[in-house]
Amino acid sequence: MILITFTKPLAKLIAHFEKFPGIGPRTAQRLALYILKQPEQTIKDFSKALLEAHNNVGHCKKCFNLTSETECEICKNPDRDQEVICVVAEARDLLALERAREFKGIYHVIGGLISPMDSIGPELLEIKSLVERVSKNDIKEIILALTPSVEGDTTSLYIAKLLTPFTKVTRIAYGLPMGSELEYADEVTLARALEGRRDIL
Amino acid sequence: MILITFTKPLAKLIAHFEKFPGIGPRTAQRLALYILKQPEQTIKDFSKALLEAHNNVGHCKKCFNLTSETECEICKNPDRDQEVICVVAEARDLLALERAREFKGIYHVIGGLISPMDSIGPELLEIKSLVERVSKNDIKEIILALTPSVEGDTTSLYIAKLLTPFTKVTRIAYGLPMGSELEYADEVTLARALEGRRDIL
Repeated sequence: MILITFTKPLAKLIAHFEKFPGIGPRTAQRLALYILKQPEQTIKDFSKALLEAHNNVGHCKKCFNLTSETECEICKNPDRDQEVICVVAEARDLLALERAREFKGIYHVIGGLISPMDSIGPELLEIKSLVERVSKNDIKEIILALTPSVEGDTTSLYIAKLLTPFTKVTRIAYGLPMGSELEYADEVTLARALEGRRDIL
Repeated sequence: MILITFTKPLAKLIAHFEKFPGIGPRTAQRLALYILKQPEQTIKDFSKALLEAHNNVGHCKKCFNLTSETECEICKNPDRDQEVICVVAEARDLLALERAREFKGIYHVIGGLISPMDSIGPELLEIKSLVERVSKNDIKEIILALTPSVEGDTTSLYIAKLLTPFTKVTRIAYGLPMGSELEYADEVTLARALEGRRDIL
């Protein structure tokens, strides 16, 4: 849509930024112009940080969270309840839950959701490792924290069926987000909120 | 505010992204996680683009727009009216005006606004070069396109005083933005809109 001819190296840089998730043409341009104003050392440090993060950050062998060691901070933390595992699709979901500071157990990052449309079957996800983990350890509860969508529900159901023989399996609540207006909630959310109603007293 | 301990190389990369303008902690995290998922070659290309843009993009010697050559695309374009100069604070303002595709003249990027609070005096801006440019060439009109703020107005007034001996000096209109609701406009904008009223017929 923007038809302005940028000078080539700038256009190239903008194109790179545009590929980032959630970055539109305007933001990409703003970021690129910011780069031009920085001292060369900043750019070099940034490039180094990019490559270092890319090359050194891998997955925790236990829960598949991001880490640069073999086991992640959460798995290693003796204060976390090792008997409750929260199952999430991606590391960013784990981070969102950590921000809520409500969960004191440990995690299992399965790396996506079952999606026949995108040819993602359970074998491509860390589900086998989850079953193994649950069968070999003393786990009191598995909390499924997957997004409320066809894929999320399919995946939750699939995992629940596999794990119920070993332990209690629950899922997080779906309903109206805090501070939202009932009037503007979509029908599916409202249906889920009704379905998940609870006694007040 | 986010107290989650990221693994070090990831935390470092997120910190870099957070320094970008308009990028908050959440977006920085999203961008960093995106980097981890890219092939190494993409990261290398991106690093190269960063350094290349940084090292090769400079300022047009005539109008101080961004360019990797001595003179920018706009100044070199024979279809642009070389007798009308639009004065902007930053290259991004020039880009915004170019997107509007209304202006067919050339530019002068002064590189900021006069701001005694930030110790930015006119000598730090490309104002001297503008006066020289106007005095030495046949310029029919200077259009000041600076933001409506104390700094923008001060700078406009300063430039107008210097250039009026040589040519006609105008400024872009301030008023209600298109599609906005009068009800929600701030008082200063409304005052400016009233002050700038025009005959309809």
